[in-house]
Amino acid sequence: MSKKIGILTSGGDCAGLNAVIRAAVYKADLLGWQVYGILDGTAGLLEKEPQYKILTPAEMDTNVLRMGGTILGTTNKGNPFSFPMPDGTTKDRSGEIVANFKKLGLEAVIGIGGDGSFAILRRLAQQGGIKMVGIPKTIDNDLGKTERAVGFDTAVSVATEALDRLQPTAASHDRVMILEVMGRDAGHIALSAGIAGGADIILIPELKYTIENVAKKIKAVKDGGRNFALVIVSEAVKTPNGEKFEITYHNGEKRYGGIGNYLAGKISEVTGFESRVTVLGHVQRGAPPTYNDRLLASAFGVRAVDLIAEGKFDRMVAWQNRKLVDYPIEECIAAYEAIDVNDTLVHTARGLGISLGDQ
Amino acid sequence: MSKKIGILTSGGDCAGLNAVIRAAVYKADLLGWQVYGILDGTAGLLEKEPQYKILTPAEMDTNVLRMGGTILGTTNKGNPFSFPMPDGTTKDRSGEIVANFKKLGLEAVIGIGGDGSFAILRRLAQQGGIKMVGIPKTIDNDLGKTERAVGFDTAVSVATEALDRLQPTAASHDRVMILEVMGRDAGHIALSAGIAGGADIILIPELKYTIENVAKKIKAVKDGGRNFALVIVSEAVKTPNGEKFEITYHNGEKRYGGIGNYLAGKISEVTGFESRVTVLGHVQRGAPPTYNDRLLASAFGVRAVDLIAEGKFDRMVAWQNRKLVDYPIEECIAAYEAIDVNDTLVHTARGLGISLGDQ
Amino acid sequence: MSKKIGILTSGGDCAGLNAVIRAAVYKADLLGWQVYGILDGTAGLLEKEPQYKILTPAEMDTNVLRMGGTILGTTNKGNPFSFPMPDGTTKDRSGEIVANFKKLGLEAVIGIGGDGSFAILRRLAQQGGIKMVGIPKTIDNDLGKTERAVGFDTAVSVATEALDRLQPTAASHDRVMILEVMGRDAGHIALSAGIAGGADIILIPELKYTIENVAKKIKAVKDGGRNFALVIVSEAVKTPNGEKFEITYHNGEKRYGGIGNYLAGKISEVTGFESRVTVLGHVQRGAPPTYNDRLLASAFGVRAVDLIAEGKFDRMVAWQNRKLVDYPIEECIAAYEAIDVNDTLVHTARGLGISLGDQ
Amino acid sequence: MSKKIGILTSGGDCAGLNAVIRAAVYKADLLGWQVYGILDGTAGLLEKEPQYKILTPAEMDTNVLRMGGTILGTTNKGNPFSFPMPDGTTKDRSGEIVANFKKLGLEAVIGIGGDGSFAILRRLAQQGGIKMVGIPKTIDNDLGKTERAVGFDTAVSVATEALDRLQPTAASHDRVMILEVMGRDAGHIALSAGIAGGADIILIPELKYTIENVAKKIKAVKDGGRNFALVIVSEAVKTPNGEKFEITYHNGEKRYGGIGNYLAGKISEVTGFESRVTVLGHVQRGAPPTYNDRLLASAFGVRAVDLIAEGKFDRMVAWQNRKLVDYPIEECIAAYEAIDVNDTLVHTARGLGISLGDQ
Repeated sequence: MSKKIGILTSGGDCAGLNAVIRAAVYKADLLGWQVYGILDGTAGLLEKEPQYKILTPAEMDTNVLRMGGTILGTTNKGNPFSFPMPDGTTKDRSGEIVANFKKLGLEAVIGIGGDGSFAILRRLAQQGGIKMVGIPKTIDNDLGKTERAVGFDTAVSVATEALDRLQPTAASHDRVMILEVMGRDAGHIALSAGIAGGADIILIPELKYTIENVAKKIKAVKDGGRNFALVIVSEAVKTPNGEKFEITYHNGEKRYGGIGNYLAGKISEVTGFESRVTVLGHVQRGAPPTYNDRLLASAFGVRAVDLIAEGKFDRMVAWQNRKLVDYPIEECIAAYEAIDVNDTLVHTARGLGISLGDQ
Repeated sequence: MSKKIGILTSGGDCAGLNAVIRAAVYKADLLGWQVYGILDGTAGLLEKEPQYKILTPAEMDTNVLRMGGTILGTTNKGNPFSFPMPDGTTKDRSGEIVANFKKLGLEAVIGIGGDGSFAILRRLAQQGGIKMVGIPKTIDNDLGKTERAVGFDTAVSVATEALDRLQPTAASHDRVMILEVMGRDAGHIALSAGIAGGADIILIPELKYTIENVAKKIKAVKDGGRNFALVIVSEAVKTPNGEKFEITYHNGEKRYGGIGNYLAGKISEVTGFESRVTVLGHVQRGAPPTYNDRLLASAFGVRAVDLIAEGKFDRMVAWQNRKLVDYPIEECIAAYEAIDVNDTLVHTARGLGISLGDQ
Repeated sequence: MSKKIGILTSGGDCAGLNAVIRAAVYKADLLGWQVYGILDGTAGLLEKEPQYKILTPAEMDTNVLRMGGTILGTTNKGNPFSFPMPDGTTKDRSGEIVANFKKLGLEAVIGIGGDGSFAILRRLAQQGGIKMVGIPKTIDNDLGKTERAVGFDTAVSVATEALDRLQPTAASHDRVMILEVMGRDAGHIALSAGIAGGADIILIPELKYTIENVAKKIKAVKDGGRNFALVIVSEAVKTPNGEKFEITYHNGEKRYGGIGNYLAGKISEVTGFESRVTVLGHVQRGAPPTYNDRLLASAFGVRAVDLIAEGKFDRMVAWQNRKLVDYPIEECIAAYEAIDVNDTLVHTARGLGISLGDQ
Repeated sequence: MSKKIGILTSGGDCAGLNAVIRAAVYKADLLGWQVYGILDGTAGLLEKEPQYKILTPAEMDTNVLRMGGTILGTTNKGNPFSFPMPDGTTKDRSGEIVANFKKLGLEAVIGIGGDGSFAILRRLAQQGGIKMVGIPKTIDNDLGKTERAVGFDTAVSVATEALDRLQPTAASHDRVMILEVMGRDAGHIALSAGIAGGADIILIPELKYTIENVAKKIKAVKDGGRNFALVIVSEAVKTPNGEKFEITYHNGEKRYGGIGNYLAGKISEVTGFESRVTVLGHVQRGAPPTYNDRLLASAFGVRAVDLIAEGKFDRMVAWQNRKLVDYPIEECIAAYEAIDVNDTLVHTARGLGISLGDQ
């Protein structure tokens, strides 16, 4: 029987979103369903008329699979339950979204997002009686219940490549090179890229560090006969006494940033080594998806449509040990996963002699 | 307490072997142990004197981590229990290896290999009373008990990139492009790269196909308005009636090869479409390791040394759902994993409308 | 004043064609002109009605710039002056093309092609009174008067990367690795990629070689303490006594191919070294364009439109020493450039101790 | 006849330096010469004893060719004619360098550097009667007489890739993305990468811009139906009224930096578009060399040794229109080349409708 389903991308963009969309469209088409692509996340439903385009397999040509970003657009302009208004107040605009959803006459909607987006989408769904299925995406990989979220693999790949490129300059100039990478509150990118990219020091928000420990490792590297060191730091890392670095954008939005620069200063001061910082920034998000992100995205997109066909809702698709599984979204949000200090990769890092700044 | 351990790479080379070696050397050094790198797999122990070099952290500079291949060398010159002699006969040379092992005075040895190598290494170990720990590596990813073996991620990445590069030529020239990839008896590379690279047809040795089904899909693609198609085929795929394609090398060695060319002919004949084949070959093995292979290799290398420290032998390290685990090697060899026809990714492929040739 | 101009891609596809088209459309739009993209090279004008699409800047979005292949399609189905008919005869179909050109009412046409295509396009233009401007593209880079043709940079880049990937496998397995690359009659790809990729031996069609010289170099490498060697060979290279290797495709088309396999056999035989061959094939054409190819393509596309605006026809745009120039097409065809044995890069190769097989 | 020659790398590191060194060593070895690699540029000659290592072909294994940075090390710690001392004064230390040069007993020295390094090296050479040959390297490509200096191709390649990665995020989030790239006083990197990477606006130090012109172009892009724009800016660009952006490092060194951030603010303010800046930084220098940089470096390295063999000194090797040439170093320094406003690529950019901010 023919159905109309919706799909939207929510929160920060990342690599693999288009591969999810393509997979869902292909699978839905096999079932004879129509897919409505809602534009700009929930913002497309805050307009007077719902903003969308109907997605057909013919439009999902092979390049969509390979393209970073999202062809549907996305926003993080604000929580519709307390939407920031131009006059500085906030307003509950959730009713507008629910009304627009209903106008579209969709049977169910696939929401591609992270924990923040899921919390909002779920509440909207409950409020409006909308059936929803979630697909996890976040370069931070901090969603529970799934080994990987879409976008993480590409982000780590770009960060590792950056360390590979900084190493020769570090060695040529006897320098400490510091790479500041993304990671809202979880250090997964820094930890994985740091191990894979040959870092000597990895600083993550989950572990407290001291400048003394950082300096001790740099000294040990030098004493071992190497003239340079590589440091990777998650943008969410604070100073040892808990000060937070933030950049205020021109729209008032605040973001992490600046810890790399702080560290460069401290390291030069304490060790006498010349040090330089590189802030990797947005190139971690928009890069073309790795094969892993395309594969995961394709598996998730197909499976989300299956869940709708099976009448299973309010669930998130997940990947565990080579298999697709699914869990109640609520459980996934609750299972937020920063790095556990007893984590396998923490152990790996220590086994390689990498300093995590805490010892 | 100081120990002397050995490490060797066995079987075909792949990306990430050096990252394993580096990790094992780093971890062993933290414990105050010495690492003997045995040269050319078991072949280095078939010489009069055992061939090795002592590996120190200083030599494991950051480039070793990023290099494909193995700095220790490897061979697949033959099973030492029935070693092919120049006169055409075979000879049990296992005693020579065991003797050389003992000469080195090693406490334990880390063998990096696939199922074939493990079977041999294990038998040698049993025969000689040598303590052994195994680290799985194979671009085919057909070893049981571990989500991934070292080398697979890079191989799939290269194969996917090849599809990405063939697509524009296919589209420009209205062609069917066929990519023949490695895969001894298991189609994992073809299946993963095929999904990630946007293939229309994926042929793997685990599923029987017909030329009719292949032609039907190509016709459907054309009817859908697309002027080209992408096919990926595992080198181990046979003709529909079971003939095997083989290339005989000048040393008499036989290898899979040629199925792509067969398919190109059949497709042109049956569909009238111009078709071309690309045999990817050795570039799948030697590419620089992806971050995933470097990460996995690092985790495995550290953990293998841990197992020795913990006195756990005859076990293989493995990766499951973001965690390191370990199993008896025997169990891992027995758990050989080709693609299950009910596999998640088989389901994903069908959901995307990809033909596996069997329907 | 508004004009209608045409653009077509002819011959084998390569990287950068879309960047040329985009640049021409952008520049034409600034002048208020309309651009007709003719489909499938001259084949689009052999249909009853001319096959084309009108190209606007809005359609030339940023991805077109980055995509391999040609959005217009291309063919090498045959010379329209002696077109191969299904019954095996040939027929002069040039009149149909000229008639279709006239039907379109174009003021001028930009032909993107190599020397073969230019010879045909020029003859068609003369016969039909069509004004034409040429843009050089060929992965072989054998067109005179221009430092580079569109597509060459990407092809060499892919070939170099292949050598980079073969080197670790060669070293791990004590092998001679042979890479067979494209190059119709000129060895530019092999020579450039061979130097950049660290080949020990480079064989090009412009220089006669002997197996003895090849073996001598391999022996010298081995005597110098290295356990492997890298060989790159242009597909157009013949056997030392002038036999040509060819593959016959199923449509009867003949192409170079097989010399790598021949060499592997001979090298194993003469030197006793294990050797393996990789035939790079179509991935050299379809890869995403390097920045150099995109830059050159953009400069050419803009300049071709300028030439039309300036009323300069029957000329080819070219690149020399950081500047755009232009020459009569006839002169460019006549100035065909294989590798001169006194060429700078031949000298470079010899200075690096690379064997060209002739000494 | 056997000779001893020296080689050193001076100034900022870049991709391809190792390929130069390797080529010089290979060629020198063919002539039976010995090569002394002087460590850390001229700093290696400011030590009590000259710091060097003898370079042999065996050490120049194939990986050296592919590695970024310089195995000899380099510094830009200060002009030896007015060397900055710890007490804040400067001192002429040129005598120490000349003395150490003489101690080494070198017949000639190959200096790999940019215009600044050449000016110093030349003066040292004249003062000490040292015979010198120069090889141009600078990611800025602002040296006259040569089409390309070593390192430029890789830097532009990395910058173009960054634009490729920013584009999807820009499109997904309706943003203006600003990329700040290196370029001391010349905008070559920004201009080439901007054209190749699909920038809408390119700001270079050679052309004055206004915020109004920048905003006008962004508005035009938006009016044309596109929801995002890409801007690339050279770090040396000043504010429209001539203020210079600088970052002061912890060693007191001042460097360009910050213009991207300034522009992001202005663009958001004037156009209302959300804008974000990425500062590419050191990854432009240390990336593995492209094939072009390896090829150029190899040609230069061989030719520099040839010049010594031919007794031609005080000259710089250069590349022009596919050929190696050489010029008096003095002439090359004098022929400093920023972007000419009538340059071919400026014309290309304007033809593509790219705004250079001046109109």
